[in-house]
Amino acid sequence: MTDAPGSLPETITKHRETVASRMEDYLGRRDGPLYEMIKYHMGFEDRPDNPGLQGKALRSSLLLFTAEGFGGDPLRAVPPAVSLELIHNFSLVHDDIQDDDTLRRGRKSVHAKWGAKQAINAGDGIRDLSTLALVDLANSNDPELTVRATEVLGNYSLEMISGQVKDLQLTDRAEISVDDYLDMIEGKTCALLRASFHIGGIYADADEETVARLKAIGKYLGYVFQLRDDWLGIWGEQEEFGKSVDSDLQERKRSFPVVYALQRSPDERLSEFRDIYFSNGDLSDGEIDRVKKLLDDLGAREGTNDWAKKYWSQATEELEKIDMEDWAKSDLKAFGEYLLTRER
Amino acid sequence: MTDAPGSLPETITKHRETVASRMEDYLGRRDGPLYEMIKYHMGFEDRPDNPGLQGKALRSSLLLFTAEGFGGDPLRAVPPAVSLELIHNFSLVHDDIQDDDTLRRGRKSVHAKWGAKQAINAGDGIRDLSTLALVDLANSNDPELTVRATEVLGNYSLEMISGQVKDLQLTDRAEISVDDYLDMIEGKTCALLRASFHIGGIYADADEETVARLKAIGKYLGYVFQLRDDWLGIWGEQEEFGKSVDSDLQERKRSFPVVYALQRSPDERLSEFRDIYFSNGDLSDGEIDRVKKLLDDLGAREGTNDWAKKYWSQATEELEKIDMEDWAKSDLKAFGEYLLTRER
Repeated sequence: MTDAPGSLPETITKHRETVASRMEDYLGRRDGPLYEMIKYHMGFEDRPDNPGLQGKALRSSLLLFTAEGFGGDPLRAVPPAVSLELIHNFSLVHDDIQDDDTLRRGRKSVHAKWGAKQAINAGDGIRDLSTLALVDLANSNDPELTVRATEVLGNYSLEMISGQVKDLQLTDRAEISVDDYLDMIEGKTCALLRASFHIGGIYADADEETVARLKAIGKYLGYVFQLRDDWLGIWGEQEEFGKSVDSDLQERKRSFPVVYALQRSPDERLSEFRDIYFSNGDLSDGEIDRVKKLLDDLGAREGTNDWAKKYWSQATEELEKIDMEDWAKSDLKAFGEYLLTRER
Repeated sequence: MTDAPGSLPETITKHRETVASRMEDYLGRRDGPLYEMIKYHMGFEDRPDNPGLQGKALRSSLLLFTAEGFGGDPLRAVPPAVSLELIHNFSLVHDDIQDDDTLRRGRKSVHAKWGAKQAINAGDGIRDLSTLALVDLANSNDPELTVRATEVLGNYSLEMISGQVKDLQLTDRAEISVDDYLDMIEGKTCALLRASFHIGGIYADADEETVARLKAIGKYLGYVFQLRDDWLGIWGEQEEFGKSVDSDLQERKRSFPVVYALQRSPDERLSEFRDIYFSNGDLSDGEIDRVKKLLDDLGAREGTNDWAKKYWSQATEELEKIDMEDWAKSDLKAFGEYLLTRER
């Protein structure tokens, strides 16, 4: 592995361009007001300064990386990779409505630009396109594989939606256990990462036991990804992380560090944390700093890291047991280290 | 045809029970808060007074009727029929959010019961289940047919969503031409009825020319259905139609009769209609009555019927040219007459 520590391995990032160009070509075939919203969201606008595909395309890149890591032809797996990336994006458009987020990847969200009603349509359209992309881009000589991928992707999409249902239920409840939280994340975040590894394995003709281990790796990496995301939402550097760092606290999000702190045995620091965090109205800068300090004192900063490391170690255990090519195993380890330590 | 005039032929309605039982069985395999909302919407609740499948299941019934009408085995076409019915229902759940409708088929809408955010998830879940039902219920020996149906249904779903995008755009504009209106309805209403006939034809191995004619029949029947729906929204009897008849006028909907009246050459009656209809605030009972009278005087009542009849005659022209079994042709004609004259 020749990449700098703390960055994404080139064997993963190199697939982003393939996904972007196939997706832009595919979406470019359609016109009208629905597709105008969809192309805007994806970054494929019909204008000279077209920004290009938005986001890291992590899920599709990992899918192609996995297929290649078993000696498969990554090009064969482009149809499900495009499909998976579109499923992720359909969920983002609907998430932005549900969270009333006006910014997405530094640009106005579809919700902010066209309103919630039309954003529902835009997300619905992306979901339909995700299924069609799989069918339209697939090799028509292999309908069985297409049907299998459709089924696998559909089930993971449902797991993700179930996680979103639970997430919205949890925000209404003051007390959330670590188990509740992890159960929600298993759907909301882990489902599509499991899909990356699962389908990458299928398209490289991996055997059943290997696919089961790949699914486990995807799940554990999903936890690592989300726990670090929650950590950055509190202790990340504003400029690095690219979104308002204190907004998670300001919105009183039940992120992992908060849930971790809340399940500790009661003491004065926890009471003080509760009093500030569960108060109404905006938190002052002083209160935000105090909340961060209290979470740190309550062990949540270190605890979140420890949990992420625990999941990463479970992922590496599975990784040791599968017959993936050496370069791929090595780069997947680098990817895990990146997820654990990323600053943005 | 042994049915009473003005009712749905038994050869169409008989399929509803098949669809209902397969769908209830399929959805019954899943549990959790997402599926609780979905089962509620469909009418498949886990309680003794389970109301059973909601709605007429018209689209799926027509699909199975069409397959049978070409001598095909309707049971073979159950998977796409269930899928199509679920697509229709996903659109209803999201429509109710967009229109802020609190009632659906006489029961609280998902939107009213769980709020808009969760109703987005419920609709998303139904759409995923629609794709999975096709795959899971299909004969695994025929993956090509499953892929084809997935593609056809996905494209019609996108047409429907495009129509919904246009509908929301139109409600923001005072002046809408008849062409704008028909273009919107072609997506919003006609798309899934075209799917019924198109896929019914495919599953009965109809040839390409026949499938093209079936698609046209579906489109024309979609117009007939919608024009009568709009007519009933103004001149239907409250008790018969089952929803508040005057709400279309009260909400200043740009339904076909209104659009028809607005495109007439200006005269005093049209000016008076405009003054009342485009005023702000609630319309009094007297104003509602006056608006109805003006629309009638402007020819909109008769004109809407005439347009519906025109589309029905185009449908029958296509019907004459296809090689459908006699009983099916005859019952399809009865169905068209029913759509033209129905009171609810």
